Amino acid sequence: MNHGGNIYRFAQYLGCLPEQVVDFSANINPEQAVDLDCLQKVQFEPYADPDYGLLKQALKVRYPQPVDVDIEVFNGASAAIFALLRWLQPRDLVLYTPLYGEYAQIAGHLGCTLHNINRFDSLAMAVPKNSTVIFVNPSTPDGQLYDMRALLTQWQAADCTIIVDESFLDFCVADSVVRHSTQYDNLYVIKSLSKFYGCAGIRIGFILAAAQAIKALKRFEPAWKLSSFDMAYMQQALANAAFIEQTRQQTAHRRDLLGQALQASNLFVRIYPGQANFLLAKLANDGNGYQLQERLAASRLLIRVCDSFVGLDKSHVRFAVKDENAIAQLASCLSDIPL
Amino acid sequence: MNHGGNIYRFAQYLGCLPEQVVDFSANINPEQAVDLDCLQKVQFEPYADPDYGLLKQALKVRYPQPVDVDIEVFNGASAAIFALLRWLQPRDLVLYTPLYGEYAQIAGHLGCTLHNINRFDSLAMAVPKNSTVIFVNPSTPDGQLYDMRALLTQWQAADCTIIVDESFLDFCVADSVVRHSTQYDNLYVIKSLSKFYGCAGIRIGFILAAAQAIKALKRFEPAWKLSSFDMAYMQQALANAAFIEQTRQQTAHRRDLLGQALQASNLFVRIYPGQANFLLAKLANDGNGYQLQERLAASRLLIRVCDSFVGLDKSHVRFAVKDENAIAQLASCLSDIPL
Repeated sequence: MNHGGNIYRFAQYLGCLPEQVVDFSANINPEQAVDLDCLQKVQFEPYADPDYGLLKQALKVRYPQPVDVDIEVFNGASAAIFALLRWLQPRDLVLYTPLYGEYAQIAGHLGCTLHNINRFDSLAMAVPKNSTVIFVNPSTPDGQLYDMRALLTQWQAADCTIIVDESFLDFCVADSVVRHSTQYDNLYVIKSLSKFYGCAGIRIGFILAAAQAIKALKRFEPAWKLSSFDMAYMQQALANAAFIEQTRQQTAHRRDLLGQALQASNLFVRIYPGQANFLLAKLANDGNGYQLQERLAASRLLIRVCDSFVGLDKSHVRFAVKDENAIAQLASCLSDIPL
Repeated sequence: MNHGGNIYRFAQYLGCLPEQVVDFSANINPEQAVDLDCLQKVQFEPYADPDYGLLKQALKVRYPQPVDVDIEVFNGASAAIFALLRWLQPRDLVLYTPLYGEYAQIAGHLGCTLHNINRFDSLAMAVPKNSTVIFVNPSTPDGQLYDMRALLTQWQAADCTIIVDESFLDFCVADSVVRHSTQYDNLYVIKSLSKFYGCAGIRIGFILAAAQAIKALKRFEPAWKLSSFDMAYMQQALANAAFIEQTRQQTAHRRDLLGQALQASNLFVRIYPGQANFLLAKLANDGNGYQLQERLAASRLLIRVCDSFVGLDKSHVRFAVKDENAIAQLASCLSDIPL
């Protein structure tokens, strides 16, 4: 049984309400930057500003961009990925794996030739000339933060179109590769906002790229795709500057607690040194992650088994960084499982 | 100066707030089906159900569909149009004009060969074999409601892919063409919800088509594109059955008042007999709609000049059906304009 990420099906299976599930399977910050009661009354009748002026302004303050770099907003990072690949129509697509499945899925439908490069043991492998490369930094499901300089140099030398997904970068203290986009036109940075801001139900993500590229990409995008409520929510979230450092520190602290809980259980042969809001672990003796998932399901805890990530198998399980109570609950459940 | 549909730019031009503009330019019901204070508390943290189960169920109750017809939801009808045409990649595209500009815009970017057929004087004109036809019923900007039977027969005989945009059909008492989709696979019905439900800021539209076609189309769509708030809002709107008949009657009554106001002004040589929530009128003596727009701008009324619709010119102006107060204000302003 695979419950990966769908708490609704999981809750149905358990016979409980979705809100009763403690969801370690989705990489979503359990904290929010917005007090809903303070959210200004949103007007739904008129069409929103088709230029998304206020939202883009808030994004530019939060994520400073070089001159000549522009921004286009989408209904989440997933919608951005689909739009970008549909538009680029890459012939050769290089995926640095493990990686979540959406890139391979859309690439398959677009008929790209897929080249998988395993980050763990072949990071420096040469890429096809003129290919499109996709790199997630920090990566998922392991959360490793990469120094991108050598990779960027290699890709540029091969005239690649470069897509860097920085959906988890806000959890780290690290620079975006967007600062290199003034020296290299074919660089696209994709970013989800829902992970860091703890609001998967708010569908706003964006792409940063050279102004010329954004202009061309936008021609295939409709006006008025973003929800007025979501825009109001996200503008308020982006304005909450204190939330940034607070989330980083809190996530680092809770990630330590989570790591200790996994370690103490003695169930795992390896816990990957992640820098994002989740940890990947490998079960001892090539254990079966689905059995662990079943065990934890009895306590309404949902975890992610990572066999759908290329290069990983069902002994790999991922845990999102949740709050202290949830981690304590997980620790207790894990300690009850016989080795 | 063209303010078409952008009340934000218009308000900026006038030096007032967008909410101070009386917007006759956008075809949006001024009434809403949802009491925001009664909207159940929406959870934003978890990802929404990627199957959109509750929303689709509400849509199926509201818009009954034959067996073997399925539904896919989008971030508004505009997003649905773009997705459908990107997927169909039509070679020959037949547009029944006048028609709003988005179809021609995306078709141009996709490199389709465009064939315009003027509904007013060439409705029965033959279409190219295997072409894709697009028809909006009731039409915009004139609001004419068409009996589709003869057209459907003609298109099917030419093996066309048929797209019928029924975004304004809820304002009329008329059947959807979706009931014909069991006899004809290549029929797509596009529908906006924001017009009838008075909520342009809520981005949900949908496509109805044969289940097989929907399955293929969905492969190019990301999971999680709809806002959780928007889904909760729309599920509540769709459940408000009393709103349907109430809106139809109210719109018909106000449309009569609007028509009388236009007639009484003596500024127009023709008022088109529309059945939707707007009226198209032609200025006497080939008058300039932009001059009328400027005149009304002084009272913060925004109207739509229709020269961007193929087959119309700047003597054509469109007025949305607003509430009684707004119509009275318009009537008063129009009566002050010298002939």
